[in-house]
Amino acid sequence: MQQSLSVIITAGGIGSRMQSSLPKQFLQVLGEPILLFTLRRFYTILPEAQFIITLPTDWHSTWNDYLLEHNCSIPHLVLDGGQERFHSVSNALQKATGQVVLVHDGVRPFFSQEMITEALNLLGEKRGVVPVIDLTDSLREVLPEAQSRPVDRKRFKAVQTPQIFRKEELMMAYNQEFQSDFTDDASVFEAWGGTILMVNGSNDNLKITHPRDLVLAQEMAKSL
Amino acid sequence: MQQSLSVIITAGGIGSRMQSSLPKQFLQVLGEPILLFTLRRFYTILPEAQFIITLPTDWHSTWNDYLLEHNCSIPHLVLDGGQERFHSVSNALQKATGQVVLVHDGVRPFFSQEMITEALNLLGEKRGVVPVIDLTDSLREVLPEAQSRPVDRKRFKAVQTPQIFRKEELMMAYNQEFQSDFTDDASVFEAWGGTILMVNGSNDNLKITHPRDLVLAQEMAKSL
Repeated sequence: MQQSLSVIITAGGIGSRMQSSLPKQFLQVLGEPILLFTLRRFYTILPEAQFIITLPTDWHSTWNDYLLEHNCSIPHLVLDGGQERFHSVSNALQKATGQVVLVHDGVRPFFSQEMITEALNLLGEKRGVVPVIDLTDSLREVLPEAQSRPVDRKRFKAVQTPQIFRKEELMMAYNQEFQSDFTDDASVFEAWGGTILMVNGSNDNLKITHPRDLVLAQEMAKSL
Repeated sequence: MQQSLSVIITAGGIGSRMQSSLPKQFLQVLGEPILLFTLRRFYTILPEAQFIITLPTDWHSTWNDYLLEHNCSIPHLVLDGGQERFHSVSNALQKATGQVVLVHDGVRPFFSQEMITEALNLLGEKRGVVPVIDLTDSLREVLPEAQSRPVDRKRFKAVQTPQIFRKEELMMAYNQEFQSDFTDDASVFEAWGGTILMVNGSNDNLKITHPRDLVLAQEMAKSL
């Protein structure tokens, strides 16, 4: 792990799916906001990395209050979240100093060190690495006029983060115009001409999206 | 709810994904095997229904032991699970006495009464009803030679159970030859010529597949 690293943690959510007025990145796991929990885990695993958090401007002062309350002195930059996740990452890349960039959802605290080590070894020229897992439920494709059809779930993988790229390449990818089908960094990178290598993610690496996820996160945090 | 109901609960799993030698339907939630927990919830919601459980033959005596241990006297039939889920359901339909059939995964104890009531109202001629939810993670399609491509997750829904049909129609559907792309009852029903109406499932209605699901199930069971 000789290359310098930047970790971009996106935290743009406004929490609508959580039935909570607080954005989901600030909901508490073991008495700590999820975003802080995620930052701490990264710092433990990659203490030399540069950390950049993108957060809607309205929540910067709340974040500062949390840092004080929890005595967090992990060095990091806080940038404005853009209108879309695309713009947040694009802004963050301007400030990233690492040769390699890890882009990560702020509400996924349970990523694994092994996955990151594997991904860093597999990174190559115009080749990004993303963790994926199998789907558990059967899948249907929604068609026009309330129609739908079954599709084979084995044909698909669910994509997780961190998604890992050479910084210079990802910057070039993010110089493209925004398109509405850019749902993650991998899709931006591929539209630019890069290829994606999929590695095994983990079912533990959940994205905290629904109230039930918070219950689970609480239990998982206890056993870390 | 004037129609007579049969509930077919499939429990064919051998537990390989659970890192446990016990099939996942027998793992414990609040001191009770999940399958028993599921049966009990159905009995509470639909006390008049007929219950049929499909279970691999090797596990019938274990199931009987559990029934005794937990003083369960809910009337139900236990049938052999077939080679595939398709064959299990097909066998169960031969014994089903209800005009309407609900086919359900034995490892999904947290279905909702509201969904079942809604589905029974929406059932129609050659129209089955299945609960679906949005996908949380980004999605990639796996292509030959280790290639993959991003797909819009909004085009897809994750399918849950119970899946609900008129019994006579589902029996005709199950008279078809088995095909490897029959992953659930909806796909069998459609291949026969039926249509599927999708209704809102729930994120709480999880399929207990991985160890982390068991942790969550434990917490959810407490708050029922």
